[in-house]
Amino acid sequence: MKAKWIYYPGDFELYLLNRIMEYRYERDAFIPPFWRLDRHYNSVRFDKSFILSKDQDIIIAVNKGTKFNIFLDNSAYVHEFKGVLHLNKGEHSLKIVLLNNEVVPSLFVSSDELVSDESWICTCNDHAFVNAASGEFDDINKSPSNFQLERKEIKPISINEKDNKVVIDFGKETMIYVQVINSKKPFRLYFGESLFEVLDFDDCELIYDFNEKNEITKMAKACRYIACYKEDYTKMRFFYEYKKHSFKPYFHSDDKLLNKIYEVSLYTLDLNTREFFLDGIKRDRWVWSGDAFQSNLMSYYSFFDFDVIKRTIIALLGKEPYKTHINHIMDYSLYWIWGYYDYLLYSGDKKFASTYYSKYKDFIEFVLGRCNSNGLLEGLPYDWVFVDWAGLNNVGEVAVEQMLLYKALMSAGEVARILGVKADEIRFINKANEIKVMIDKYFDEDKKAYLYTRINGELTDEILKYPNMFAILFDLCNEERKALLVDSVLLNKNVKEIPTPFMRFFEYETLLKMGKHELVLDEIKKYWGGMLQRGATSFWERYVEDEKEPECYSMYGRKYGKSLCHAWGASPLYLIGKYYIGLYPTSLGFKTFECHPRIDLLHNFEAILPLGNGKIEIKNYGNLFEIYFNHGECKLTINSKIYVLQKDRHYVIDTVKEKIL
Amino acid sequence: MKAKWIYYPGDFELYLLNRIMEYRYERDAFIPPFWRLDRHYNSVRFDKSFILSKDQDIIIAVNKGTKFNIFLDNSAYVHEFKGVLHLNKGEHSLKIVLLNNEVVPSLFVSSDELVSDESWICTCNDHAFVNAASGEFDDINKSPSNFQLERKEIKPISINEKDNKVVIDFGKETMIYVQVINSKKPFRLYFGESLFEVLDFDDCELIYDFNEKNEITKMAKACRYIACYKEDYTKMRFFYEYKKHSFKPYFHSDDKLLNKIYEVSLYTLDLNTREFFLDGIKRDRWVWSGDAFQSNLMSYYSFFDFDVIKRTIIALLGKEPYKTHINHIMDYSLYWIWGYYDYLLYSGDKKFASTYYSKYKDFIEFVLGRCNSNGLLEGLPYDWVFVDWAGLNNVGEVAVEQMLLYKALMSAGEVARILGVKADEIRFINKANEIKVMIDKYFDEDKKAYLYTRINGELTDEILKYPNMFAILFDLCNEERKALLVDSVLLNKNVKEIPTPFMRFFEYETLLKMGKHELVLDEIKKYWGGMLQRGATSFWERYVEDEKEPECYSMYGRKYGKSLCHAWGASPLYLIGKYYIGLYPTSLGFKTFECHPRIDLLHNFEAILPLGNGKIEIKNYGNLFEIYFNHGECKLTINSKIYVLQKDRHYVIDTVKEKIL
Repeated sequence: MKAKWIYYPGDFELYLLNRIMEYRYERDAFIPPFWRLDRHYNSVRFDKSFILSKDQDIIIAVNKGTKFNIFLDNSAYVHEFKGVLHLNKGEHSLKIVLLNNEVVPSLFVSSDELVSDESWICTCNDHAFVNAASGEFDDINKSPSNFQLERKEIKPISINEKDNKVVIDFGKETMIYVQVINSKKPFRLYFGESLFEVLDFDDCELIYDFNEKNEITKMAKACRYIACYKEDYTKMRFFYEYKKHSFKPYFHSDDKLLNKIYEVSLYTLDLNTREFFLDGIKRDRWVWSGDAFQSNLMSYYSFFDFDVIKRTIIALLGKEPYKTHINHIMDYSLYWIWGYYDYLLYSGDKKFASTYYSKYKDFIEFVLGRCNSNGLLEGLPYDWVFVDWAGLNNVGEVAVEQMLLYKALMSAGEVARILGVKADEIRFINKANEIKVMIDKYFDEDKKAYLYTRINGELTDEILKYPNMFAILFDLCNEERKALLVDSVLLNKNVKEIPTPFMRFFEYETLLKMGKHELVLDEIKKYWGGMLQRGATSFWERYVEDEKEPECYSMYGRKYGKSLCHAWGASPLYLIGKYYIGLYPTSLGFKTFECHPRIDLLHNFEAILPLGNGKIEIKNYGNLFEIYFNHGECKLTINSKIYVLQKDRHYVIDTVKEKIL
Repeated sequence: MKAKWIYYPGDFELYLLNRIMEYRYERDAFIPPFWRLDRHYNSVRFDKSFILSKDQDIIIAVNKGTKFNIFLDNSAYVHEFKGVLHLNKGEHSLKIVLLNNEVVPSLFVSSDELVSDESWICTCNDHAFVNAASGEFDDINKSPSNFQLERKEIKPISINEKDNKVVIDFGKETMIYVQVINSKKPFRLYFGESLFEVLDFDDCELIYDFNEKNEITKMAKACRYIACYKEDYTKMRFFYEYKKHSFKPYFHSDDKLLNKIYEVSLYTLDLNTREFFLDGIKRDRWVWSGDAFQSNLMSYYSFFDFDVIKRTIIALLGKEPYKTHINHIMDYSLYWIWGYYDYLLYSGDKKFASTYYSKYKDFIEFVLGRCNSNGLLEGLPYDWVFVDWAGLNNVGEVAVEQMLLYKALMSAGEVARILGVKADEIRFINKANEIKVMIDKYFDEDKKAYLYTRINGELTDEILKYPNMFAILFDLCNEERKALLVDSVLLNKNVKEIPTPFMRFFEYETLLKMGKHELVLDEIKKYWGGMLQRGATSFWERYVEDEKEPECYSMYGRKYGKSLCHAWGASPLYLIGKYYIGLYPTSLGFKTFECHPRIDLLHNFEAILPLGNGKIEIKNYGNLFEIYFNHGECKLTINSKIYVLQKDRHYVIDTVKEKIL
């Protein structure tokens, strides 16, 4: 029996989210989120009834700053408690009440026969009792409120003087704590993701004011470069802060550009995979649901960080009462509902899905309660209807929102089905089908496209890729129309290009669904390769080919407002894993899965990818295709030949002779 | 223009409630409430648009520990802010975002033309914008989170040795911080409300462990006596902590016992009137809705502490989602709904009532949502159906609960009417009338009484005073039946006596409503006089005449579990004010009021009482009755003669000749 720190479900996640949501600064201005922050319950009770087969000492600990009491055997408080409770053999019960306003109250109980774990029930005193949650915390000296990412000291690749400044270059985007050593006076340090930014002391986005002799920055700061005035320069130490991954993916082929895109994508996701999935490590340094939705998918095909994925999902929802969309963004609520299903599918983690199911359901009802009298989603006052950073007119019943609502409801129906909640399954699926009928009315036969929005009952003329790609992706029309949309919209040069990797994610996925693997591979190399040509060491929030330096660093009206290390920039991880390695679970948690490597497009390649907790390794050199996996059953497709393979075996296939050797 | 510290409405109150709800200890065991604690929003935005007629400096401050930013003129963050913002004449807007996890984030803005006040709007980022709240905080150096009651040094009346102990006596119940002076070693101090308790080191309820040389207790402690082992004794200082009242009531007559009862009642209420109304200063040292309901009424007739009354009402409700009754107690939800109306009536404060009206209404709907299929309140799992500390069987549809629900709904109907919310008024009154019809079925013609409860459709036989007094008090039957109930139940010696001042409050009020002024006066003198004979220096939680020392100090199975300074022990303040001085508002905030002093029962008496923000002074010596008031219009009844009197005049009435002199 392993004792674990236990806490109220979801509360460690909210506590941690609050902590990291306070790290955003624009120069000296502190910027907290503009949505409601929900917090851990400050007062929580943990209960356990148990039988001891012998007398024993019970160690009971709470995290630092937590006040508590112990109520024993439903009869009396334990007085003069000094950390150990001696109990005689026999039946007992403990009710332990904790209170902590600042950090999540957490309990650790350890003895021969009694340990704190998820079998304890807990309550925030709202008449509801739920099983306590625990995480990876099993050391009495390291409670959940001590949670920290890993750190290691790193060195810059160069320190140069330029005019009256000293510029320190780490060679690539990084996330560091800076400590000054024996600083003789207060001074300001400037951070930059680009050299342009770091040298522009008036406008660079991140600064830090050191006031003490050996001060270390309160949080890691994102940068490739740091600089200060020459007169202020002092010795410094740098500590790289990072998330330790339990899985290390690998991809290599004979296409060097593609390898580089993969490597930089992986590094981009790595940097943004922290306590939670951040949108960008410099800016906003916040957790956004739409961004995290894609990060999850990328993670399923790379590090598969169960902890970060679950933490991000549950922290994003927050607490009742639900009053606004997640992050205030309508589409982001819908991605969240959809993404909940994705996690269940990829992980097979029914326990997580059922722990938070009632909150999940309540949130869906909240969203449905915001539909207009036509039963469609339309921005209510203060709602943000986002879709993309592309100057969109998101007034009225925006088609994409209805499509995402459909997808969210279908996903929710699947979640309900898997958890065996029949009534909810029927409700969500029926609701989705109602929406589907209404979505069809956005299609214009003459224009051969789904129109963008409907304002006051009138469809607007504009043709954009967004609704047309989602119509295909979500199977909102038949195959004939899908093919039509590819030509009339997606590959139509007269239709505006998508400027963000965020929406390119879905655009490329749509084209891949339509079999355009070769075209998309070229596009990936062109788009992400374009950023590499600009010297990107991590991928950007937005990239438009013809924007030159330093204009290409600006966004939101700020010279260096663009994030140059943005999670959604890492989508090649997902696209390569799902469509070129062709990996996809066909039942929960990869119990069965498909693998359809595109040996026609990738040459002499190797890949190691996660299968939830398992892994798959493939190699293809010449005619020989090797595959090994330690989890599930694989339906492998090579060219058009199908093989059904079992775990824990090493297969070598001759792809010309189409047989297992 | 006066600048005030502003904060999110209700959040200072919740912050302060959380702070004081952490002061309860039973010896060394920390006991937080067993209901959900709700907290202030940690992140709040304050907005203001304004026009300056000239250039000026704007001072902007937040309370200690609050992080913030300033967004000016909807265009940019203010950088390098050092406390003063210089603005040019013309139109401007400010959005100031604050974040504080520990204490309520608060804002202070001051300049010639712009100040922080309730005209600013604020939001917790939930899409709802409300006017900011402010309190008595108008000093930039004293923010809401610095709030503290007053303190002054006091001296004990004696310090004696007894066996191996030193006992310090303050002569009466008190609430003190103790500071040790140059203590040479850690030691424990014992507190007692009675001498029995303080000498019983093993079982006294309150202790304090001093570990530092000049340590002062972290909170004031309730006691009359303190003691320690002789060997530990060291010099100490004592600081009485108290609420400063803006009004000082007065009552004096030629009945010395009644005067003493009044004086000790006033002191009892005074001690329990703190940041909030406490139930008892030793135990539970918590804010309970039923107790506070009565404290409010006592306060209307004594100190009329607007601040404490409002603070208690709003803090008790907490935040959405409402999941349990207030304090987990069904009746306490109902007293809260009723008491909201009382405050509106006595204070005339429509602003307060309307500020929190939507929460008030939502809470009423929550309570109604908990009715059973008969439309009656019946305890749901974990609900506490209390009524009184009297060994009651509160299973099923307890009559008192339905009666309180009726009263609560009628009160809510009045609140809605006063605030002009017609639809709600109708809903609440109709609902009340439905309940009234069902209440009638508890009346048993043969037994001439309302029966106590209905379990599984069967009325129980038991006859108790509770439902019968409420039936009269709430006019749930006609006058004939009321008179019948007085004889058959209330004055029936075979019906069990009520053991607590809490329910004696309503019992006596009922008898007074039925004109039994002489009888009740005798009862008051007997019941409260009995406590005085026991040496009470403040009134008790429960008093039963034949319980001797030290058994009379026990409760809840603990030797000294009873509170000897319990707010509900102070009800003579209310009974004397309302029924013997006969003061009662007949319109909101005493705009018109009645005064019906019982000069037949009180002799040679003087009284000074509040009329909301005003006051009334009366004197009666011999045949001469003097009256002065500075607020409203008074309908004075002396004997049976009625006089209509105007404010700001001094009247002298000859009560025999029945004329104004």
